[in-house]
Amino acid sequence: MAVGGIDDLVKLVARLPGLGPRSARRAVLFLIKRRESLMVPLTKSLHDVASEIKTCNICSNIDVLDPCSICLNSKRDCSVICVVEDVADLWALERTSSFKGLYHVLGGTLSALDGVGPEDLSIGNLLTRASSKDVDEVILATSATVDGQTTAHYVAERLLSSNVKISKLAHGVPVGGELDYLDDGTLSAALKARRVI
Amino acid sequence: MAVGGIDDLVKLVARLPGLGPRSARRAVLFLIKRRESLMVPLTKSLHDVASEIKTCNICSNIDVLDPCSICLNSKRDCSVICVVEDVADLWALERTSSFKGLYHVLGGTLSALDGVGPEDLSIGNLLTRASSKDVDEVILATSATVDGQTTAHYVAERLLSSNVKISKLAHGVPVGGELDYLDDGTLSAALKARRVI
Repeated sequence: MAVGGIDDLVKLVARLPGLGPRSARRAVLFLIKRRESLMVPLTKSLHDVASEIKTCNICSNIDVLDPCSICLNSKRDCSVICVVEDVADLWALERTSSFKGLYHVLGGTLSALDGVGPEDLSIGNLLTRASSKDVDEVILATSATVDGQTTAHYVAERLLSSNVKISKLAHGVPVGGELDYLDDGTLSAALKARRVI
Repeated sequence: MAVGGIDDLVKLVARLPGLGPRSARRAVLFLIKRRESLMVPLTKSLHDVASEIKTCNICSNIDVLDPCSICLNSKRDCSVICVVEDVADLWALERTSSFKGLYHVLGGTLSALDGVGPEDLSIGNLLTRASSKDVDEVILATSATVDGQTTAHYVAERLLSSNVKISKLAHGVPVGGELDYLDDGTLSAALKARRVI
């Protein structure tokens, strides 16, 4: 039995993904024991982010600036737009430091089951951006899931009229992956897309 | 790449037990997407708990009151003190609603490896409490680990002079447990402590 405010805090922490009631109690006790070194800085950081965070009106990225720091960065190649499902995917691509263009965050995938239609995603904005004369290529970097690929297909169809080059991520053997453990689909795709050395 | 304040928040969240960098990023994005419904209430709750929380000067429990609500509760049986390692153990016992006495939180276990000696635990306070004429029994509810049992043994020795009854939790088959999967030590203990039906 946790008391009053602690109980409420445990319930809120337990709503985070990957945490249940037991791990939330553990996390809260961990915080309470590190009040000065962790709990107070965490509270401040949460408060700052909650009050400063904005959604970029160009690419729907999340940032403290609007337009976001990527859209504002004049060193980025504004002729290429990489379309991702979510901000987490944008972060993943940024961590690789191998893409220097701009992004467009759709905000999810089309999903008949979950009732997500084209109007729920930021597709209209993307079409406007793609039709600008600065943009040469749109890379569809949605997940290789059924919903992700359906979304990529739909977005590609809508982009046809914009006269931009449309590309998608390569399928193949993950770096470090063993052939023996790969699924048939990935292996077939890797074989089909084989390259001359 | 998360930006500025978000990056700091991810690093702080990643320090919580059970969360790594990847799950921390997921948790932070989850929070940002639920700013009003989760992030703001969580910030407020963290702030409240961080500013109100106190350690009970009698039993070392954590509460918004000092002495804590258990020590202050006149309906609790003050003739029995249950000694636990940590506040998490106190919460676990309180959830069972099967103990109506008072608690004493040691704040850890004796551990030569981690350099935790008797002076690092609240043993002195416990001896003072146990020597009061109100107290009849001290239950040693430390974990059934080597460190937990060493601590129980040490505390029991120190309590000898107080003339209180000293007891410990029963060892045996966990409720719902299958004999086949139990370790030998537990099974031997359960057999030795068998009871007439």
